[in-house]
Amino acid sequence: MFSVIVMKLNLTTGIIPSLNVSAGLLGFFFVRMWTAAAERMGFLRQPFTRQENTVIQTCVVSAYGIAFSGGFGSYLFGMSDKIAKQATEAKDANNIKDPHLGWMIGFLFLVSFIGLFALVPLRKIMIVDYKLTYPSGTATAYLINGFHTPEGAKLAKKQVKTLGKYFVFSFFWGFFQWFYTAGDECGFKNFPTLGLEAYNNRFFFDFSPTYVGVGMICPYIVNVSVLLGGILSWGLMWPLIAKKKGSWYPANLEDSSLHGLQAYRVFISIALILGDGLYNFIKVLIRTIAGFISMVQQNSKSMLPVSDNGSSMSSMEAVSFDDERRIENFLKDQIPKSVAYGGYVAVAAISIGTLPQIFPQLKWYYILVAYVVAPVLAFCNAYGSGLTDWSLASTYGKLAIFVFGAWAGLSHGGVLVGLAACGVMMSIVSTASDLMQDFKTGYLTLASPRSMFISQVIGTGMGCVIGPCIFWLFYKAFGDIGESGTEYPAPYAIVYRNMAILGVDGFGSLPKNCLTLCYIFFAAAITINLVRDLTPYKVSRFIPLPMAMAIPFYIGSYFAIDMFLGSAILFVWERLNKAKADAFGPAVASGLICGDGIWTLPQSILALAKVQPPICMKFLSRSTNAKVDSFLGLS
Amino acid sequence: MFSVIVMKLNLTTGIIPSLNVSAGLLGFFFVRMWTAAAERMGFLRQPFTRQENTVIQTCVVSAYGIAFSGGFGSYLFGMSDKIAKQATEAKDANNIKDPHLGWMIGFLFLVSFIGLFALVPLRKIMIVDYKLTYPSGTATAYLINGFHTPEGAKLAKKQVKTLGKYFVFSFFWGFFQWFYTAGDECGFKNFPTLGLEAYNNRFFFDFSPTYVGVGMICPYIVNVSVLLGGILSWGLMWPLIAKKKGSWYPANLEDSSLHGLQAYRVFISIALILGDGLYNFIKVLIRTIAGFISMVQQNSKSMLPVSDNGSSMSSMEAVSFDDERRIENFLKDQIPKSVAYGGYVAVAAISIGTLPQIFPQLKWYYILVAYVVAPVLAFCNAYGSGLTDWSLASTYGKLAIFVFGAWAGLSHGGVLVGLAACGVMMSIVSTASDLMQDFKTGYLTLASPRSMFISQVIGTGMGCVIGPCIFWLFYKAFGDIGESGTEYPAPYAIVYRNMAILGVDGFGSLPKNCLTLCYIFFAAAITINLVRDLTPYKVSRFIPLPMAMAIPFYIGSYFAIDMFLGSAILFVWERLNKAKADAFGPAVASGLICGDGIWTLPQSILALAKVQPPICMKFLSRSTNAKVDSFLGLS
Repeated sequence: MFSVIVMKLNLTTGIIPSLNVSAGLLGFFFVRMWTAAAERMGFLRQPFTRQENTVIQTCVVSAYGIAFSGGFGSYLFGMSDKIAKQATEAKDANNIKDPHLGWMIGFLFLVSFIGLFALVPLRKIMIVDYKLTYPSGTATAYLINGFHTPEGAKLAKKQVKTLGKYFVFSFFWGFFQWFYTAGDECGFKNFPTLGLEAYNNRFFFDFSPTYVGVGMICPYIVNVSVLLGGILSWGLMWPLIAKKKGSWYPANLEDSSLHGLQAYRVFISIALILGDGLYNFIKVLIRTIAGFISMVQQNSKSMLPVSDNGSSMSSMEAVSFDDERRIENFLKDQIPKSVAYGGYVAVAAISIGTLPQIFPQLKWYYILVAYVVAPVLAFCNAYGSGLTDWSLASTYGKLAIFVFGAWAGLSHGGVLVGLAACGVMMSIVSTASDLMQDFKTGYLTLASPRSMFISQVIGTGMGCVIGPCIFWLFYKAFGDIGESGTEYPAPYAIVYRNMAILGVDGFGSLPKNCLTLCYIFFAAAITINLVRDLTPYKVSRFIPLPMAMAIPFYIGSYFAIDMFLGSAILFVWERLNKAKADAFGPAVASGLICGDGIWTLPQSILALAKVQPPICMKFLSRSTNAKVDSFLGLS
Repeated sequence: MFSVIVMKLNLTTGIIPSLNVSAGLLGFFFVRMWTAAAERMGFLRQPFTRQENTVIQTCVVSAYGIAFSGGFGSYLFGMSDKIAKQATEAKDANNIKDPHLGWMIGFLFLVSFIGLFALVPLRKIMIVDYKLTYPSGTATAYLINGFHTPEGAKLAKKQVKTLGKYFVFSFFWGFFQWFYTAGDECGFKNFPTLGLEAYNNRFFFDFSPTYVGVGMICPYIVNVSVLLGGILSWGLMWPLIAKKKGSWYPANLEDSSLHGLQAYRVFISIALILGDGLYNFIKVLIRTIAGFISMVQQNSKSMLPVSDNGSSMSSMEAVSFDDERRIENFLKDQIPKSVAYGGYVAVAAISIGTLPQIFPQLKWYYILVAYVVAPVLAFCNAYGSGLTDWSLASTYGKLAIFVFGAWAGLSHGGVLVGLAACGVMMSIVSTASDLMQDFKTGYLTLASPRSMFISQVIGTGMGCVIGPCIFWLFYKAFGDIGESGTEYPAPYAIVYRNMAILGVDGFGSLPKNCLTLCYIFFAAAITINLVRDLTPYKVSRFIPLPMAMAIPFYIGSYFAIDMFLGSAILFVWERLNKAKADAFGPAVASGLICGDGIWTLPQSILALAKVQPPICMKFLSRSTNAKVDSFLGLS
């Protein structure tokens, strides 16, 4: 279920909120139902524990994590012919690999497990020794701990009820919408809520409960940034640039050509993303190194060297009773170091041997280098997300695109090499941060680390099969995936491919002034981040995030309006009743997201079965309508 | 404001719920605002009393009462050329009078005031002597009394806030809808919510907050009856009769011709309405006579003859302190009998002299007869509605259509005479019952009867000007008023005209089997009513009302679905929280009705100013859509 939702988000806007809380909530709900039923039948005598809840939740997270880190909306899909056609160059067969179920599953199995082994030695350092916070993981742990007290279970039941209500509403709303989507540009997804002029500039409310829910989960500043980005780009810049048609770029181009207006849209958003990514990468790197140095210095001063089997723990500073039990429990079910290192080397060896079978352009020594560097980057990312809750997996992926793409060169399939290397790198790095969050949850809920590890292995295995299958379903069911202006534009696919092209051979055929604008926005992204960090919180919290602003640059503002509406609802709700909004806001949002997400399943099955909706809800201007009426003989 | 709402209801479906409670609530709200502002400015020292509230409310009720009893949706509009064209015969100029502001205002001034004078002598008999309940008036009185206690004012404020919220929502929803209505068959009013097939049979939810609100105010049985009527007629009978096309009626007729399918729709609903009306008329008449006889017998047995100046009141049976004060107050500010009788004769004389100027076909002796009989019928209706809360004004009107129409005959403009006589009769009879409800309210809130009377005179005067003006606005702004299948079909206009034609010359040119079906439904209406009255309440409350079933027969079920939704919402709400639903349900409903009703004002001003909406939201079947797309060059 979460894989479907993440896949849909991947292919629509690429903005994916944290679904950990939803996973915990639904996991609790389903298992509670199951155990209640089992108890009634007399099969079960033991109660459902929070440890079990945590283990289930970590399995779900690792499974749906693959739907994101598998790059179905970014690098993997960016390899396809469909996306290549929209790019300016590198359209040769050497740089293209169309998605296919077989090789996608194989590829994911090869790259996804290695992250798990890299995690094992890091685990103790991050959580027990460094005591990193991992905000999301901690929040999930408190949620799960809360569920398993009598009062918590009562609230959880209410939350689940709310979630269920909005789930049903959102599902049936999706179903209802479907009836009116016969033909292109039909249905609520094309409702010119703010007028036809605004609609043509992609400003409209598209009645998507998913993004209203996403807006309720994302921080206000993200929503405001997205909306600002939309206004700046589609409201201001693109109309101005469109006036230069014929002077800045040829006038006879189609709207979607990357030699025309589309180039500004794609490359300026890449410039923003890269600027923001680079800034944060350097910032987190500096913080990580500084934090690491001070940690090591402190350790060497104030205590015995931390031994790996945890026997010297008692010599640390005052540790609360809770923490003592947690540490004891956390270190009880250890996974032997030898298994971890051996596993890493074995999986790496298999990868190096077989990945070139899938991508002949990806030489074995590229992979070797990647696997040697990866643990260091995984450490950086796990440490950084422990501090800031912000995983930079995709930034590390972009780094890999540039490095390996340039190394291979265009003629040797550099674009494909870059994208594949991005996949290898992202899998390890994102596993490292995501699953570390879960280990923190497990630590706080006293779950056995060995069970957690096994659960993650199972979840990853499931994800490697489920992810490609769901992508395949979407790909086959909705014919226009990846095309700009459709329901599933998969915005990051074209962005990633163009980054790979940029990395391989520079700024070849961009239209006039595009590069200048890119430089300006790249610099602006860094400057804005710098200002955010240097000003006090009460000022900086009103400064938008360049990364969030970049997305509507390419796909338009309609989802920004959905998200803004979501955050406006939450804002008003919080003003009216803060306690209730805090308790039920995430449940409402999860319900909206899940219901709409699950509706895509029957929807794609209907599409595959060639069942077409019966009615088209069309929006015509008054003059066009008069023409159509006379055509139909109505007037 | 209420006149606009009633006018809109008149012209859409003709179902008008009691707005007394809304009038009381809004009156309280506006005057409270006004007095609060005046107090703050230091102008006002006295508090706002419930007596003032009652006087304001009675003024509002008498003003908007004209919008109904003026027959803009029934007899008055039925005289017009537009409606005559849709009928089978009597299309000569002698039987047509097109609406015009001047004569409409004059006509209303002539017929509306006479009811007030007829009321005066009845007032004491009904309320003090007979102690009739007048359920609506009593409910309004309790509401107003409630407002003017400190706790009531608090609840009233909350109710007003709820009303305001839904008012704003409903108003802006109307505004939003407007943008998508460029051209016919565009916009939410034509949303095939239940599919295109159902839409063609007028089964769809038309997103009208008015009728959702009406559904929340009307008793469940009314909503269910309306829906049942819709299913029976448009779901079952019309499709079956349509299959007989070519055999029962000529196949080459337009859908709206009264020689074809439309005849079945109109005359079967007339049969139902007449059957129900006749049954209730006889029932109420019998009850009235029986009640009157037993009252007179009791009076002559147990007490002194009731004198007219109320001095012998103290000799009655135990009267509570509250009632004593009420009676004392009610009889304090008497209107002299001489004024009442003199006024009645004077106004009647003026009417008899001038009405034939407006309608030359309406001879003076018709009017004289009407005014001689009217007080008796007014008494009947006031007594009946005091017992049952059910005003039969329109049934008395229909009676006048038949009697005077037949008397005049077709060649002497009998159709027009019947409709005009209906107006004369309905005005008196409906004033008698509506304003008696208000006198009951005034009695219970200790308002001065003389102030009430003056307020009613002012209100009636206002209504005589406001009503025609608003009708004129609608008539000029929306060009297609009175045409079947449009937004404003004014269903009762054609029904009343056809009744007049029937009365004048029988069942001339009805299509095959139509008369048989009419007899069946006429008998069915009487039988159903009989069954309702003879079975115990727990059975009879599930038996539908024929009168309510008749309306969708002619105009379709879309408003029935709105109303059903409204009652479903209320039903669920009552199950969840009965107290809250009871306190706030009417406020929500009034807000929905008022907001949508008021939106028609700016809407009609826009239409008059020739400002057309920019977008058409069109609903096409998949195949038509493909054609249109290829026509527009999109595909």
